[in-house]
Amino acid sequence: MRKYISSRVINRLPKYSRTLHNLESAGYDRVSSQMIADSLGYTPSQVRQDFSMFGAFGATGYGYNVQGLNREIQNILGIHERHNIVLVGVGGIGRALLEHMEFGTYHYRVLAAFDVDPNIVGQVVNGVQVYHMDDFISFVSEHAVDICMLTVSREAVRNVAKCACQCGIPAIWNFSGVDLEQEFSDVAIQNVNFLDSLFVLTYYLEQHKKVRKHKLD
Amino acid sequence: MRKYISSRVINRLPKYSRTLHNLESAGYDRVSSQMIADSLGYTPSQVRQDFSMFGAFGATGYGYNVQGLNREIQNILGIHERHNIVLVGVGGIGRALLEHMEFGTYHYRVLAAFDVDPNIVGQVVNGVQVYHMDDFISFVSEHAVDICMLTVSREAVRNVAKCACQCGIPAIWNFSGVDLEQEFSDVAIQNVNFLDSLFVLTYYLEQHKKVRKHKLD
Repeated sequence: MRKYISSRVINRLPKYSRTLHNLESAGYDRVSSQMIADSLGYTPSQVRQDFSMFGAFGATGYGYNVQGLNREIQNILGIHERHNIVLVGVGGIGRALLEHMEFGTYHYRVLAAFDVDPNIVGQVVNGVQVYHMDDFISFVSEHAVDICMLTVSREAVRNVAKCACQCGIPAIWNFSGVDLEQEFSDVAIQNVNFLDSLFVLTYYLEQHKKVRKHKLD
Repeated sequence: MRKYISSRVINRLPKYSRTLHNLESAGYDRVSSQMIADSLGYTPSQVRQDFSMFGAFGATGYGYNVQGLNREIQNILGIHERHNIVLVGVGGIGRALLEHMEFGTYHYRVLAAFDVDPNIVGQVVNGVQVYHMDDFISFVSEHAVDICMLTVSREAVRNVAKCACQCGIPAIWNFSGVDLEQEFSDVAIQNVNFLDSLFVLTYYLEQHKKVRKHKLD
């Protein structure tokens, strides 16, 4: 049995995976915790501690095998397996994500998209057919859908999320700007809120300004 | 002098602010740490500990004044002040953010957007004029720009970020999918990486599946 892993460690795993991918692309075969730490702004001991949560990944002193370590992390995240996605809401953000996300590079496949706008229903966006929301339940019942992407409005998101849960979709990727996790404890949820990141940026911006001003004074 | 605040606490402040905003809209005047904790999935002691980093916000036992507490948090984040944004890259994501982000609800103003595509330059997107990238340096030198939003490709992002830094823009909000912070230590940076959030969702999805399977076995 694997021990409980904190969400903080889990949140760092994608960054490790992307860093290792870059190191592999750059021709690295083995890598030290120091190198990984440097490229992410962590400390080497933090990196080693994170990895130790999942067992022995590499021989200390010889570093880690880049490809093997990345495969281990991908296995832990589960991203080595195929996952099917449906998207609801083909407005600006939904359409942009359909067109630009590298789903295929990883093992994700967008099976279908849904909207209620008659001008949008029937379109094919980057190879993905847009169906009317009326067809959502029957589509999901006939396909193995792992993830429902919600790029709908704040007003619509709760009803669509409820519907997705009732259809048995086990994960919701929510871009609506309204956090959902407390009401949907039976499914996996990630809320992507752009404002949160803008607010945090603003905090650090103001800190930087103070330091700059201090230097000038 | 304020003591050092960890990034984990800072990252939670926008969520507190949004929660308090919702509570205020719902007519609440005072709120307990328990209520705030419940709506965010934190523990009350965590909430109290976070707030204690910034001084005494409320009288224990009587709870917090909703409006006052939110104003305090907004002041800490610096989002009560006006901030000017320029956006580079009016492709799908850039255009969608220009059209859908509630910049005006908070004190952000998008002054201008930039692109190199002659079909896009000259457009006005949601009231924002799109200029050619050739005009970027002169525009920034003539306006007080706080934040540069980068919705450009992975290939372009480093050069544009360097240019923004050289022009003295103190903050970069980076949607390119390439993390930048290690190379740009003199400015505030937030990297928004959709894949990170999808990978983390996938991890929790697989955990949920295991629990469901376990219940069925």
